[in-house]
Amino acid sequence: MLMSGQRRRRKASSSSRTATLAIQRRKWPPGLGSFTNSCVSDGTAPSGAHTEPWTFVVVKDRVVKHKVREIIEEEEKINYMKRMGRRWVTDVKKLRTNWVKEYLDTAPVLILIFKQVHGFAANGRRKVHYYNEISVSIACGMLLSALQNAGLVTVTTTPLNCGPRLRVLLGRPTNEKLLVLLPVGYPSQEAMVPNLRRKALDQIMVTV
Amino acid sequence: MLMSGQRRRRKASSSSRTATLAIQRRKWPPGLGSFTNSCVSDGTAPSGAHTEPWTFVVVKDRVVKHKVREIIEEEEKINYMKRMGRRWVTDVKKLRTNWVKEYLDTAPVLILIFKQVHGFAANGRRKVHYYNEISVSIACGMLLSALQNAGLVTVTTTPLNCGPRLRVLLGRPTNEKLLVLLPVGYPSQEAMVPNLRRKALDQIMVTV
Repeated sequence: MLMSGQRRRRKASSSSRTATLAIQRRKWPPGLGSFTNSCVSDGTAPSGAHTEPWTFVVVKDRVVKHKVREIIEEEEKINYMKRMGRRWVTDVKKLRTNWVKEYLDTAPVLILIFKQVHGFAANGRRKVHYYNEISVSIACGMLLSALQNAGLVTVTTTPLNCGPRLRVLLGRPTNEKLLVLLPVGYPSQEAMVPNLRRKALDQIMVTV
Repeated sequence: MLMSGQRRRRKASSSSRTATLAIQRRKWPPGLGSFTNSCVSDGTAPSGAHTEPWTFVVVKDRVVKHKVREIIEEEEKINYMKRMGRRWVTDVKKLRTNWVKEYLDTAPVLILIFKQVHGFAANGRRKVHYYNEISVSIACGMLLSALQNAGLVTVTTTPLNCGPRLRVLLGRPTNEKLLVLLPVGYPSQEAMVPNLRRKALDQIMVTV
């Protein structure tokens, strides 16, 4: 799971509240389709050897969204209870997350971004997708900027151990692996965000 | 090496010209320092368990820039001549790149982005940086958007096999690995860009 800076920009919450993602269920930009299309297709994200190794699956259907939630909650419960060690559970504790992911139903749109670990050449042979994870993550960062500029909010999540089942649910081929899932919408009026501190500038930037 | 979409937005070149990166040597935004700082420090990039596993090294010094160039040209020449297979050489041929990287001297600023493969806790023990490569790549994508919005250009490069020597040159610790190098500046009047086609929307986006 990745913490969303998008959330941080908004007013910090009382730390006594669980920091769940609060997205309005109904309100949504009228031009959703064209906005998402333009983010993706007019986007000029770079990729290794210009292979464009990504698939953006935009889930709007309520039933499919709920199936996504069911898969993620089942797998995440196992992550928290059994699969991940005490260290991981401790490291994410301050983020007040758990395996209940109500926002997967609430958010009007889920964008599941798959990396294509290889492609196919015209003759059917495997085509190498150089740096596919880096390329798709960069494209994800550019999409996050575009969403923020449009006044939308999201939380950048990496559903742990859920990739294979979600890939099958969405009918994606075996050369695609789920990289991140972005629930997208307008912020709820009651949205609460954790007041996380960030590193000081001299800890992250050096000038030579 | 990653192809920069930033370049693609500008007018396509005659394909008879080598697509070298043409950045103006002198012209540079007066507020360079504050711009870069604000991209990095006000940036709200998400990261795995909020670990912020990145270091941005901004190289402005001409002598250091030239040393960066020398290291990259030496290593890239070996990549092209010996280290990489024929398939790689063929795959990047259409991009008309080679091991001569004049832009590393010309660009007024080089931003070298390092991922911290682990951190250190207060007690000196290793701290796990979950999803550090994905996190740093997302931050890189957000920086690319910010550079583009500021009217600057860059090319997203991943100097192959150059990481260890560049890390030593810049005095970065062993827990940091070079992820990407961005030469940044205003476009030259004579800039030429390859006219690469991009995949159609229905090849990269699916709506459910």
